[in-house]
Amino acid sequence: MTETIQNTEATALEPVDPKALDQLFHDARTANTFSDEPISAETLQAIYELTKMGPTMMNLQSLRITWVQSEAQRSRLIAHAGGNNASKAESAPAVAVLSWDADWHENFPVFFPHAPERKEMFSDADSRALIARQNAWLAAGYFMMAVRAQGLAAGPMTGWDFAGVDADFNADSTWNAFMVVNVGKPGPDAWFPRLPRLDEELAVTTV
Amino acid sequence: MTETIQNTEATALEPVDPKALDQLFHDARTANTFSDEPISAETLQAIYELTKMGPTMMNLQSLRITWVQSEAQRSRLIAHAGGNNASKAESAPAVAVLSWDADWHENFPVFFPHAPERKEMFSDADSRALIARQNAWLAAGYFMMAVRAQGLAAGPMTGWDFAGVDADFNADSTWNAFMVVNVGKPGPDAWFPRLPRLDEELAVTTV
Repeated sequence: MTETIQNTEATALEPVDPKALDQLFHDARTANTFSDEPISAETLQAIYELTKMGPTMMNLQSLRITWVQSEAQRSRLIAHAGGNNASKAESAPAVAVLSWDADWHENFPVFFPHAPERKEMFSDADSRALIARQNAWLAAGYFMMAVRAQGLAAGPMTGWDFAGVDADFNADSTWNAFMVVNVGKPGPDAWFPRLPRLDEELAVTTV
Repeated sequence: MTETIQNTEATALEPVDPKALDQLFHDARTANTFSDEPISAETLQAIYELTKMGPTMMNLQSLRITWVQSEAQRSRLIAHAGGNNASKAESAPAVAVLSWDADWHENFPVFFPHAPERKEMFSDADSRALIARQNAWLAAGYFMMAVRAQGLAAGPMTGWDFAGVDADFNADSTWNAFMVVNVGKPGPDAWFPRLPRLDEELAVTTV
């Protein structure tokens, strides 16, 4: 169907430098306050350039990112925050609204150029929306790692009125907001003590 | 509510070593064939130890992993593969079934020890299942990066009969399979040419 390419070097891959893993996984924390240090447009771009490389089903890439940068738009967004999320989003130098695109299949010729006709398999809107959601949540995991890879802290939040966010930010598109992520250098008292992770006995089994 | 701790060093964080990012994002590929080289139990454990560190809503950690390692169990699993997925899963030295746990809230005292009573907020099974799915797909993104961080290739697949997988592997639990991931060193002709990623114009907007 598609040409394969040989890979002679990949078997030599070693585990990634522990310092990088500390920054991405072990030491990284969900920040609740941020410094004033601005985030450059180049850094925001670099975050997307990493995020997009992560694997998704059929390469479909249903995740969409809205960077809410202007004061006016930030205020509109924060009106939809629940709980303590308004103050967190106010203090972040950059805020991303993550959405899934209900019509991701329109990009089939771009992301699956060797078989664009497979777009026809996805004419049902409900099943297309389910696939869009699943793969956007998956890619949100890549996004979090991409933010941390830039030396920044991410503050993901789901306690928002997403119908309101959609009305204000996605009204003219097929995008559907599902998460808001604060991005920046951590500020003072940025985090609570780390919450415990599940021991392997609770989450992993081998058969 | 909970004590905060100060963070004086985090603002000095720099972008992660480009070599690590090549391995995790830029050069990493979804492998379709694997070498025979076995994966040690320690490496499988290290994959979970990284995966679990990624942020989830309220720290709820709804992702579950079943490593299917014995020959007999591998055969049972492969009976539920769609398309070309059987041969891919046959050639992988390790195969993970990823599931979401419908009763993740039972672990509230473990993952949210300062407010275990919030478990009561999640008595509705439908909304609990939705949260479980979303956060498990998010953590699947962390899992993919954790596999690559070990110097291994991941081959995620969703074309499986997951009802059948659940009947064979999750019948006595509240786990629900949603993805199968092959894990190992890539074999010969491991991948197709990389498929194009969406340009920023198609996936990112700034307001």
